[in-house]
Order: sequence, then C-alpha cells, then structure tokens
Amino acid sequence: MRPRVASATVTTTVPMLDLTADPVELTAALVDVPSVSGAEATLSDALERALREQAPHLEVIRSGAAVLARTRLGRDQRVLLAGHIDTVPIADNLPSHREGDLLYGCGTSDMKAGDAVFAHLAATLTEPRHDLTLVFYDCEEIEADRNGLGRIERELPEWLRADLAILGEPTGGTVEAGCQGTLRVEIRTHGRRAHSARSWLGDNAVHHAAEVLARLGAYSPRDVDIDGCVYREGLQAVRIAGGVAGNVVPDECVVTVNFRFAPDRSADAALAHVRDVFAGYDLTVTDLSPGALPGLTAPSAQQFLAATGTTAHAKYGWTDVSRFAALGIPAINYGPGDPNLAHTREEHVDTRVINRSTDVLRRFLG
Amino acid sequence: MRPRVASATVTTTVPMLDLTADPVELTAALVDVPSVSGAEATLSDALERALREQAPHLEVIRSGAAVLARTRLGRDQRVLLAGHIDTVPIADNLPSHREGDLLYGCGTSDMKAGDAVFAHLAATLTEPRHDLTLVFYDCEEIEADRNGLGRIERELPEWLRADLAILGEPTGGTVEAGCQGTLRVEIRTHGRRAHSARSWLGDNAVHHAAEVLARLGAYSPRDVDIDGCVYREGLQAVRIAGGVAGNVVPDECVVTVNFRFAPDRSADAALAHVRDVFAGYDLTVTDLSPGALPGLTAPSAQQFLAATGTTAHAKYGWTDVSRFAALGIPAINYGPGDPNLAHTREEHVDTRVINRSTDVLRRFLG
Repeated sequence: MRPRVASATVTTTVPMLDLTADPVELTAALVDVPSVSGAEATLSDALERALREQAPHLEVIRSGAAVLARTRLGRDQRVLLAGHIDTVPIADNLPSHREGDLLYGCGTSDMKAGDAVFAHLAATLTEPRHDLTLVFYDCEEIEADRNGLGRIERELPEWLRADLAILGEPTGGTVEAGCQGTLRVEIRTHGRRAHSARSWLGDNAVHHAAEVLARLGAYSPRDVDIDGCVYREGLQAVRIAGGVAGNVVPDECVVTVNFRFAPDRSADAALAHVRDVFAGYDLTVTDLSPGALPGLTAPSAQQFLAATGTTAHAKYGWTDVSRFAALGIPAINYGPGDPNLAHTREEHVDTRVINRSTDVLRRFLG
Repeated sequence: MRPRVASATVTTTVPMLDLTADPVELTAALVDVPSVSGAEATLSDALERALREQAPHLEVIRSGAAVLARTRLGRDQRVLLAGHIDTVPIADNLPSHREGDLLYGCGTSDMKAGDAVFAHLAATLTEPRHDLTLVFYDCEEIEADRNGLGRIERELPEWLRADLAILGEPTGGTVEAGCQGTLRVEIRTHGRRAHSARSWLGDNAVHHAAEVLARLGAYSPRDVDIDGCVYREGLQAVRIAGGVAGNVVPDECVVTVNFRFAPDRSADAALAHVRDVFAGYDLTVTDLSPGALPGLTAPSAQQFLAATGTTAHAKYGWTDVSRFAALGIPAINYGPGDPNLAHTREEHVDTRVINRSTDVLRRFLG
C-alpha cells in the first residue's frame, strides 16, 4: 500500500506594490523584491498584478518574465517607456535603506528608480496626452542573447511600435540621446617558439605587437556632432596577453581592442575602419553592437526635450536604445539613477532626482 | 586494557647497484630508482652503499640526500665530477626500456647517464691520474634555494676544491664550456583606469608598452668570443600582461623580459645594461644568476679537451657550472644526454654516446 500523501496548497507570496504611492516609496518596494537576472519572476508577478488591479485603463500582457502594458486611446503619438527589472548579483546590499535624501540598495540606480517612475506615471495618468506603452523586461545585465527586449522584438514586434522610446537607464536625470556602438576584436601576432637561451632560433610574437600598440597610440579618434550631441570615439587596447614560460620565446600575442564608435557609422563600417587601422594583422571579431542615432529631430523627441527644459548629450555607453534605433524609433536614455554607481556595492539613488524626473515626465505625458 | 600491537620490522629495500657493470646497464639501474626532486633518498642510499662496498679506495660521506666521495692520493690536480640525481616528475615513462641503441625513461638524459659514467669510472679507476671528487647532489630541478650543490657549498666548502669541474648535464657528448647568465625583470607601464566608452578620461598603460616592445625589437644582441667559445646574447619579452575587463582602459601593463648574457658581464653589469636599455621605465628584478666563464686556458681544461679530441662550444642555458666558476674553478658541461630531450615524456639517451663519453673520461682520468 502506498503511503498517504497529505494534499498541500502551495502558496506563492506575491508582494503587494502600490503604484499610486510616491515613486520613491515605490522604488524602495521594487528594490526589496530581489530580481537578479534570470530570477525576476516574483517581481514580474507583482508588477503584473499591480498593473492589472490598479491600472484598468491599460492592456497588460506577459512575455516570460517581462510585463508589458499599453493604452489604446488613439492618440497621434505613442511613447514607449522601457526599463529592465533585473539587477546584477546582490552584494550584501539588500534590503534598501534611506540615508537622508539617498536610497541605498542593489538596483536602486540601475534601474528600479526608472521603473518606479514609469510604473507610477502609467498607473496614475489615466488620460495621457500620448498613447503609452510600458515594457518591463528581464535579463538585461547578462548575455545579449538572453535579453528580454530582444525576445519581445522577435515574438511581439507590434508591442515595440512607437514614435519615441525612453529607456530608464541611469543618466542622473539628464537626457542622453542615442548611444555609441561597441566593437571588440582580438589582434594576434605570431612567431616561433624557442628556448630564450637560444632566442635566435625563435621569433618573438610579443615584440611584433609593438607595431599594433604603436598604431593604437597614434590613433586620433573623431568627435562627431549629431543633432547637437557630440559623440567622442575611442580605440583602446583593453587587454594584452602573451607568454609561455619564463624561459621561452613566445609564439603568440593577443591584443584585445575595443572600438567605441559614433552612431553615424554602421556596425559594418566600424569594423571596416578597424580592419583598415590594423591592416596586415590577423583580426578576430568577438563583439559587435551597433550604436543608435539620437533621432532628436523627431517631433516627439523635441516635445520631450522642451518638457525637460534642457538639451541632450550624447550617451557614451552602449544601451538597449540601439534596439529601438534599429527599428527607426527615436530613442533616449533618461533615468534618475547615477550611472557611476551602477553595479557597485554602495549603489544608491538620489530621491530628489526621482521626484524631479517624475515631474518632467508627467509634464511631457500628462 | 590497550590492544596488543604486533611488533613489526620495517624493511627498507635499498636497491643493489653494480658500479663495475657496463655504464649503460648502470644508467638503466639508476633510472629505475625513481628520484623526483625532494624524494631522492632511496637512490642516495643505494649510491652510498654501492660506493662504500665497491669502491673502498674512496672516502664517502652524505650531506642530506647528496652523496660525496673522493680519493686522497696526493696528485697534483683534482678533478671534480658532479651530477644531480633528481629528476623532473615522472611522465608515465618509467621503468626504463631499450629500443635498439636508445634507452628510454625519466632521467635518462637529464642526467643519470652522466651520473652512471662518473660513478662507474670513480669505482673502477682505483689509481686515477688526478685526484677525483664525486658529487651526486639533490634538488637541481627545483627552486634554486633548495639546490643540494648550494647546500654543500655552504656546509662542506672543502669538498668543492678542485682544479677542474665537469658537470654531467646533457650536452650530447660534446664539450660545452662555462654558461650564460640569466636575468629576468618586469617592466611596468602605468596609466589611469577609465570606462572604455569614456576613454579620454583614462590613460592606457598597454599603449605605453609600445615603446618597451619597440626597444626590444630594435635591440642588437652581442656575440662574444671567450676562449674560442662564442656566447650569443639575447634580450626577449617572455610574457606580457595587461587588462582589467573588456570595457576598461587598463592602468597597468607588465612586460617580463629575459636577458641571457655572456659570462664576460657580471650579474651587476648585466643588470646595469638592462636598466640602460629601459631607461625611464619602472623595472623590478625577479631573477638574476651570473654566468660562468669557460676557463679553458687552465691546464686541466686543456688536458681534458685534448682527451676528447674536440673543441669546446659555449653553453647557452644556465647550469650549476656557474657555482664552480664563482669559486674560481674552470667548469665544463659534459654529459651523454641529449639536452633537447630533457624534461620530455619521450626522454631517452643514445647508449653509444654513453660508451663514448666513458671512453673519453677514462682516457683523461685513467
């Protein structure tokens, strides 16, 4: 006879989120639901339930651990507000805590403060000036092929249609437009191994790297002005490695070069340029992501800039705005977090910037 | 009540070695007693017992795992025959086996064939022309500060007095005189770390290494003739390393340079030269061993060369002959092993070279 198994009800606790609360409080609530990349489901469930219960004017759907919502008011323009809900691994910096105007904790700056502002406005602006789409997505902090926004682009492309995309990545409350592209290549020099006591029998691959480094040192990067944003390029060795043993002439040396390029170059053009710079060398591409044009001449972008009362600057780091730019959508980075604190143990956000960003976006959307 | 413990006699088996046997057979017997550095005691015991029992004309002592023996015949000249008895770790290449004229196994070339020739001659030449000193020492293949010859130099200096030292390191049966010195330095370039997307805020230490590599590439090494032996110098990068992450401008790069220098330079002079070559750079010495002058003008060395019927060549690798040279003793590398097979899995020795070396040394010493 089989033993009797008591029937049990598994209760999954979905934290309650109050989207109508002060966005600073909402930021803290989001931060206090851990959501390291790949383990966002509890936070996704909480966001989905809160949107369904507290924002009945929105159409809400799920895509894996991503939560999407939108109005269908027939407005002339549609603004998409996007934020990733995952974080880097927790560094003993949860739960969140306040110190004066600062809110500390993993994900405060990168980028749950941005998520909180977007969720609060979407829930409370029941009659926005523009149609709104909310995209809260997963797995931004890890390998590009797991990125939730990429999955949405493949599976739900109609959900990404918009006239302007605002990505809540940390910018310190300033407007950073477009983004630079990034290319990583390995340049290999070759030689012939030999005992260093008989070095004339060998051919030193590390010595051959002198010319590669000299070309890097002599390189003059461009400054490119697009829509009033200046993109400063850079071509840098980020790694060099060669050597077999302390008594061996090395037969290989690898210089890893990172090219950050202005968005007036396509990915292909950037690669062609780097191939030109290192003509004659063995070159392997290990990473290539296109940049994003700022698209500030679009009417929706102009209206947003007017609401902020400031001008836009170029975004230097690569962000998911490039996915929107590739779809032809003007895309802007605008979030209350501090980019210099992202991924740090002491990560925090200035609550005054959260409130200011909320006011700016409400003026633009309300 | 405590349990009864059966009394047991621990029998350590000391292998029997026949020093009067054919030196090829003796080589195989030595190889078949494993003696990886630090674990030479069984072989030391066997050598000590064999010398005491089969060579009563020799004074025999122990120094740790080293075994020393000498005649005291009052001859005009004393010849010292030195060989390390340790090997690198066994690479599934024991016990020894014969394939035609070749004897395979760990330590065959480096350098139990040399040890066998020396032990056989010392045991069978009861009335040598020159007084003889045998030094079989431990721990040559590992850190210099554990080298048995260094310990003997400190604790038993009178045992190293001689007019000529012959070291049985593998030379393929040719005479290799003196040895080159070796100097290893780390050259550091410095910079300032920054995100590679904002590279103008940083200063790339890897780019600064271009000049270090350029100086290496432009360096013209000397060929130095001493006593008819040509020492070819070499200045080589043996390692280069720099890099923090794929998106960071590196703030440090380290080039490890190995200078192999002719023995007309002292260690200090070699270092001063390398400091000159890399003037202006941060330089750290990690290894410095002086070379050894060939000393071929000494009468004992001339007699040995006459017995071989050949001329001497420069030794390029560093060996323990430099310890004898530092004591003012002409020192020669002469062993039947093949230097190119040392430390290899397929290590072997040509038995014909063992026999030829035995004949040459018997002619010189007999």
